Amino acid sequence: MTSKTEIHKKNLEKIFYPESVAIIGANKVRGTVPYDIIANILKADFNGIVFPVSPREKFIAGIKSYQYVVDIEDPVDLAILVFPSSVCHMALEQCGQKGIKSAIIISAGFKEVGGEGIEREKQIKAIADKYDMSFIGPNCLGVINTDPSSRINASFARKMPEEGSIGFLSQSGALCTAVLDYAQAKHIGFSKFISFGNKADISEIDLLYYLKDDPKTKVILMYLEEVSDGIALMKAAQDVISKSGKPILVLKSGRTSEGASAAASHTGSLAGSDEICDAAFKQAGIIRCSNIEEMFNIAIAFAYQPPPKTNSIAIITNAGGPGVLTTDAAIHDGLKLAVFSDETTAILKKNLPKTANIKNPVDVIGDARADRYNIALTSAFNDPAVDAVFVILTPQSMTDIDLIAREVAKVSSHYKKPVYASFMGEADVKEGIDVLQRNKIPHYSLPESMSKAVATVYKFNQEKHDIVKKERIFNDLKPEIAKAILNNAIAENVGYLTEETALKVLEAYGLPVLESYLANTSAEAAQYAEKIGFPAVMKVMSEDIIHKFDVGGVVLNIQDTEDAKTAYETILKNVQVKQPDAKVKGVLVTKMVSSGQEVILGLKRDPSFNSVIMFGLGGIFVEIFKDVSFRIAPVDEISAKAMINEIKSSAILRGARGKAVSDIQSIVESIMRLSKLATDCPQIKELDINPLIVLEEGKGCYIADAKIMLSINSK
Amino acid sequence: MTSKTEIHKKNLEKIFYPESVAIIGANKVRGTVPYDIIANILKADFNGIVFPVSPREKFIAGIKSYQYVVDIEDPVDLAILVFPSSVCHMALEQCGQKGIKSAIIISAGFKEVGGEGIEREKQIKAIADKYDMSFIGPNCLGVINTDPSSRINASFARKMPEEGSIGFLSQSGALCTAVLDYAQAKHIGFSKFISFGNKADISEIDLLYYLKDDPKTKVILMYLEEVSDGIALMKAAQDVISKSGKPILVLKSGRTSEGASAAASHTGSLAGSDEICDAAFKQAGIIRCSNIEEMFNIAIAFAYQPPPKTNSIAIITNAGGPGVLTTDAAIHDGLKLAVFSDETTAILKKNLPKTANIKNPVDVIGDARADRYNIALTSAFNDPAVDAVFVILTPQSMTDIDLIAREVAKVSSHYKKPVYASFMGEADVKEGIDVLQRNKIPHYSLPESMSKAVATVYKFNQEKHDIVKKERIFNDLKPEIAKAILNNAIAENVGYLTEETALKVLEAYGLPVLESYLANTSAEAAQYAEKIGFPAVMKVMSEDIIHKFDVGGVVLNIQDTEDAKTAYETILKNVQVKQPDAKVKGVLVTKMVSSGQEVILGLKRDPSFNSVIMFGLGGIFVEIFKDVSFRIAPVDEISAKAMINEIKSSAILRGARGKAVSDIQSIVESIMRLSKLATDCPQIKELDINPLIVLEEGKGCYIADAKIMLSINSK
Repeated sequence: MTSKTEIHKKNLEKIFYPESVAIIGANKVRGTVPYDIIANILKADFNGIVFPVSPREKFIAGIKSYQYVVDIEDPVDLAILVFPSSVCHMALEQCGQKGIKSAIIISAGFKEVGGEGIEREKQIKAIADKYDMSFIGPNCLGVINTDPSSRINASFARKMPEEGSIGFLSQSGALCTAVLDYAQAKHIGFSKFISFGNKADISEIDLLYYLKDDPKTKVILMYLEEVSDGIALMKAAQDVISKSGKPILVLKSGRTSEGASAAASHTGSLAGSDEICDAAFKQAGIIRCSNIEEMFNIAIAFAYQPPPKTNSIAIITNAGGPGVLTTDAAIHDGLKLAVFSDETTAILKKNLPKTANIKNPVDVIGDARADRYNIALTSAFNDPAVDAVFVILTPQSMTDIDLIAREVAKVSSHYKKPVYASFMGEADVKEGIDVLQRNKIPHYSLPESMSKAVATVYKFNQEKHDIVKKERIFNDLKPEIAKAILNNAIAENVGYLTEETALKVLEAYGLPVLESYLANTSAEAAQYAEKIGFPAVMKVMSEDIIHKFDVGGVVLNIQDTEDAKTAYETILKNVQVKQPDAKVKGVLVTKMVSSGQEVILGLKRDPSFNSVIMFGLGGIFVEIFKDVSFRIAPVDEISAKAMINEIKSSAILRGARGKAVSDIQSIVESIMRLSKLATDCPQIKELDINPLIVLEEGKGCYIADAKIMLSINSK
Repeated sequence: MTSKTEIHKKNLEKIFYPESVAIIGANKVRGTVPYDIIANILKADFNGIVFPVSPREKFIAGIKSYQYVVDIEDPVDLAILVFPSSVCHMALEQCGQKGIKSAIIISAGFKEVGGEGIEREKQIKAIADKYDMSFIGPNCLGVINTDPSSRINASFARKMPEEGSIGFLSQSGALCTAVLDYAQAKHIGFSKFISFGNKADISEIDLLYYLKDDPKTKVILMYLEEVSDGIALMKAAQDVISKSGKPILVLKSGRTSEGASAAASHTGSLAGSDEICDAAFKQAGIIRCSNIEEMFNIAIAFAYQPPPKTNSIAIITNAGGPGVLTTDAAIHDGLKLAVFSDETTAILKKNLPKTANIKNPVDVIGDARADRYNIALTSAFNDPAVDAVFVILTPQSMTDIDLIAREVAKVSSHYKKPVYASFMGEADVKEGIDVLQRNKIPHYSLPESMSKAVATVYKFNQEKHDIVKKERIFNDLKPEIAKAILNNAIAENVGYLTEETALKVLEAYGLPVLESYLANTSAEAAQYAEKIGFPAVMKVMSEDIIHKFDVGGVVLNIQDTEDAKTAYETILKNVQVKQPDAKVKGVLVTKMVSSGQEVILGLKRDPSFNSVIMFGLGGIFVEIFKDVSFRIAPVDEISAKAMINEIKSSAILRGARGKAVSDIQSIVESIMRLSKLATDCPQIKELDINPLIVLEEGKGCYIADAKIMLSINSK
């Protein structure tokens, strides 16, 4: 952690738990942001002292007001700035002088408006750094802490949410208002609620670390419009998940380029490619949600109930149709229907009507009242094969909705297994749903959403232990060789390395390079070919020729010495015809490897995530099926294996269609070495190993061609 | 149409518009189904006469009751049966005697309980047929018609829905109760609402035809657990869509095999494969929904607003974040953001605050009130580039939610372009949403659902004209030859046809069969090879050998006469070793075609949809990527082209990766001919043309191997 991170950590404590707060730029006009914030703090019964600061007013909302923050005699823990952006820096400077270490800057008119705003944002950031202060914002809705020991609503939100165990972070303030309204109706409570705006000082990363250690927070939710430091975000997520076990759910907008450009005009930032973001989140254990509803559907499953021990569920329903829909969804999502024990079956048979379905999904049928739900619930919870219970209800004429909801809450309270409910409909079921929500039984208007949420919780708990990556340490690397070559090339203003040179860089990182020699005469070429053995391959090497095949610069399958001589001559002749002005360094002679499976390894740079490693099978698989996978470097062994397994065509490597099983472990090794090269050498802008020829299991793989593009401005 | 279909059509009119109704099996006990139905009819202010029929009671709910239906002096249009299933047939018999032509059988205890129930269902069906009666049910919730000229709630649902233009059909009665409750809360109205239960007499097909001509119905929704007659369903859907332009939305459960088996225990029926169902629905123009919410989201877009003329939309929002989310969703769903005219831009620039975003998506910003929404709405509607308007609102502290909702309703009423809204949140936005819903502005809690619904409406309107299939008439078919071969084989109890015989069947339907001869000596084989030209292929023909390759029964690439003789001997020798007891008919000699692209055509039978035609590219594409497409025969030219284009690997046929463009038209032709063969010859159980070798454009395609499995019991 940097020292600023440490400072933020300490100062954040005062943002959430201040003993005194100054609202700077306060006024008396109801319905304006400055007044609403004071009113909100007072209304929420804040456990501390409020100091309005206003150049004009003597008192606001019955409280003595100060002209300047430095006029306040008592110590102030937290400053909330609502001044116009043009004077914010002056107020912040005074906060610094007063020794205030924590601030929330609500005011808009900074980076998001461009031009002067960008300068103003730099200015306030500099002031904060000078005084070791930390601030949230600018351009935000504010911060809420529901913890009764503080109970501060330092925001201009319309309402204070209920207390709960969900921590919510949002880059968009407006979205916060929708979320608070949504949550209120569903009795969803929050531990901390933070609109972080332009994140000029305190970032989502700092907030993640804070929530990791916040005992009131069990689940972390975040709305993001852009990922500025993807690597730090991944690291933070991995730390949070591995050390606290808390899940992180992210709704990230800007999926499409149009969306990203709308976001850019909104927050003045550049969004990265969405595919890469997906891969990075997955790698870091972050659960990516596709909309707010899905986010909260999953959040309440995490927050309200213990995770299911296995994916074996029981479904209890009073209607066949919805039972089928729920079964469909559960199976689709990777859950399974528990097979009841004989005991359970006997109890259900004895106590439910003849027409009931006593197998899973249990149908207590349309005229069921609470007593019948009780029997089914109790039996399901008691059955050792059941690890989670899904309760479905349709409002039929006999259904005592409210009582059934109470029964669900009562029975489930006696068991440590999780329960989830879907009372289908909206008007008549409302009261029952309310009972469920107040009793922290996760409720879903659709059984399909319930199934998806529970499957996500289950999967997270299965996988969370693999989140921390263990990068392999290689002892045979020669980074100094690779770096020297790259730096030399950059010094000479070369845009890309010829294969011969690229191979030397790869060899320095222990990647499987074939023996090769650069020949400058046909005799030399023949001699090298004899040395490495036939069949051989020859390729022209020239910094001016990127596509060697297109100029006739490659001869494959050279069978003997005579062949070798001819091949050399042919290549030079072809190049002379097709690209007469190309400066030829020589002809590279290597062994021909042809019996393996061709795969592609690649590296590209991403503004948010830096080194993106790509894997795919050659040819149509990449080009037509886009059957490729990505990971962010460093890539450890588990991730490397996963990136191979997650593409469909990797079945071919595993021996589909009667093919020999390929040496997958050697690809894993190559991916990890490439990952190391990528993180060590920023000089490389893009890299293609295409193809990497993979032999049968145990026999390794070989690089048959490679290209390295250089970043001219980085050594 | 069959005569029974005609009878149903006439009798359905009396089910929805009866002038008098007898409730048979009525009683006085509140909270029971028989009483609830009478109460429901009376409560809904039925425009006709109610006659309770009860063996015991003299009057019910203040109305004179009759012992038997035949005792009623007046004519009765509709009988509603709520008697126990064991005596239903007697009551129905009496209805027949009384001349009642229409009935709703609410009672359960028929096919769905198995055993005796199945018999009872046959019995009531027979009575209905005898008297030319039609009935809905048994085992259903009943029927509702909101049309003021009838207003009948002939169901035991808890409530009567509002009047509207959505027709709803459901196989599950319980699901109806959830749907009614859901719809009530959202002010969604229905034209006709039908729980059709076991559909022993009137089926969903009959109901589709009825709703096609019902002037009150604009959109048809259906919940199905099983498709009993898929072909008839497709035909009906095509008729409805092409003749009335009404969309059909279907929620079909039993997607997974577990779901299907839960459905089977529920309705006693067998569900077909879900992939086939998907293909069939698509082919018939049916919109398949994945849950109830999605179904109604799409339904209200159809029912409340005109369809957008193009996919060019404007987004108006008071919050940047949700604007980005909406843009992402719209682009993802195939919509596009309109580029505003200079005029629109000028108006927005002049009338909106500086900080507003005047480009699409328009951000009227957080403190916007109704007046600002008015400006943005009016400008968007007036812009000729805009064909639909999306309104987004988040409940910020200044937002006058209710007034903005009224503004949306008011402004949009002056334009013929559709408008859709998403007021995000739940508690505070409730009142505004209510205003929208009462004004028939489709409202969505998520912008993502709005986008999906609108994109679906747009797509349906684009594609609905292609729904009617025009089957190609071929004049060169010789069905008598094909049928004779198939019938002969079946008569001889042969399970599958050898390639040689299969090719004759295919040839009779004009499929591209290569010249081939059956040789019985090596000399003969060589002679035939010379005749057709080299390179040649030889394959063993034996009804006992299904996998010719596995027994060494195939020799490829035969280059000359000598080769041909050897090949013949080799094949016989191999078979002698590997499968000595196989009865060999001879060795088939054909030309070797190898330079084309291999594709697969297949036919399988499905219990619901009969002939399912499959297309895919050979090898890994089918096996690993499952990159195949299905259509139900008859397949017309448009569908055949679509089934080729919809698979990813067909890019290869179109010339991806520098390959020659394949003769796609020849595949289209082959698909149509195969489709014709499939519908003409039920003797074929399964058929594989694998591979069909497709040459370059204009050069046709050739069948390199084919298998036909026979249905032993169908000629």
